[in-house]
Amino acid sequence: MLDRTYPAQVCSIARTLEVVGERWSLLIVRDAFLGVSRFSDFQRSLGIARNVLTQRLEHLVAEDVLEHREDGAYVLTRKGRELAPTLHQLMKWGDRHYPRPGGPPKLTLHTGCGGNVDAAMVCDRCGDHVAQRDLEVVPGPGLAAV
Amino acid sequence: MLDRTYPAQVCSIARTLEVVGERWSLLIVRDAFLGVSRFSDFQRSLGIARNVLTQRLEHLVAEDVLEHREDGAYVLTRKGRELAPTLHQLMKWGDRHYPRPGGPPKLTLHTGCGGNVDAAMVCDRCGDHVAQRDLEVVPGPGLAAV
Repeated sequence: MLDRTYPAQVCSIARTLEVVGERWSLLIVRDAFLGVSRFSDFQRSLGIARNVLTQRLEHLVAEDVLEHREDGAYVLTRKGRELAPTLHQLMKWGDRHYPRPGGPPKLTLHTGCGGNVDAAMVCDRCGDHVAQRDLEVVPGPGLAAV
Repeated sequence: MLDRTYPAQVCSIARTLEVVGERWSLLIVRDAFLGVSRFSDFQRSLGIARNVLTQRLEHLVAEDVLEHREDGAYVLTRKGRELAPTLHQLMKWGDRHYPRPGGPPKLTLHTGCGGNVDAAMVCDRCGDHVAQRDLEVVPGPGLAAV
């Protein structure tokens, strides 16, 4: 487990950032949402040094964000899955402020309806307020090879 | 400006994390939401080394998250203020998974109504889906001195 860097901070944001407030950790969680579960696949996806990846995975397992299964797979716990709204907000902010020529690399669709769901969780087709569990992430028009 | 660490990643989360995916940066943004605007006040609030703070502030200004005004104040730009939903989600996740004995350090209330707004942006008093602009952050029962 990493050191607690903000001992004097009584703040749930600070506490959360001790666990996942480091770029690799959130990208590992993102990959886990996208189905990556093997050490070598995380490594390939992220281009991260083995020792750094080992350390980050161990930390996420120690904090119960990932479960390390007997078969070697790393999978999100319920606590880890509850980071979905945070990742959704990070994605929408990036889509808005760092747009790609072709459009967003990923789309979040309203399951069943197919409309686009915006950062405020409103579906642009049916107008409903969409729950996180009714969101589907699919490849978008900006997901070209680089 | 920091190096772009994930050149091969076509991902709005990765792009966003290049800008704010480092703990201090998000805590600086949090403090700016709470009204901190002076270098010395950020330093006091965060207990961060001057050179690190200088670097992070310069990066956030270069990325148009903060504006550095002529009078020396650092204030959130519109782009910066649009990080509010991300911080809200990080806070709610921390409240849920790292609860404090007395309760949450901060509460998010539905302006006008006064109900508590949960991570799904639903007010526990009136049941409405609350927009980010109708959220008010106030000190909570867990905000005791440490």
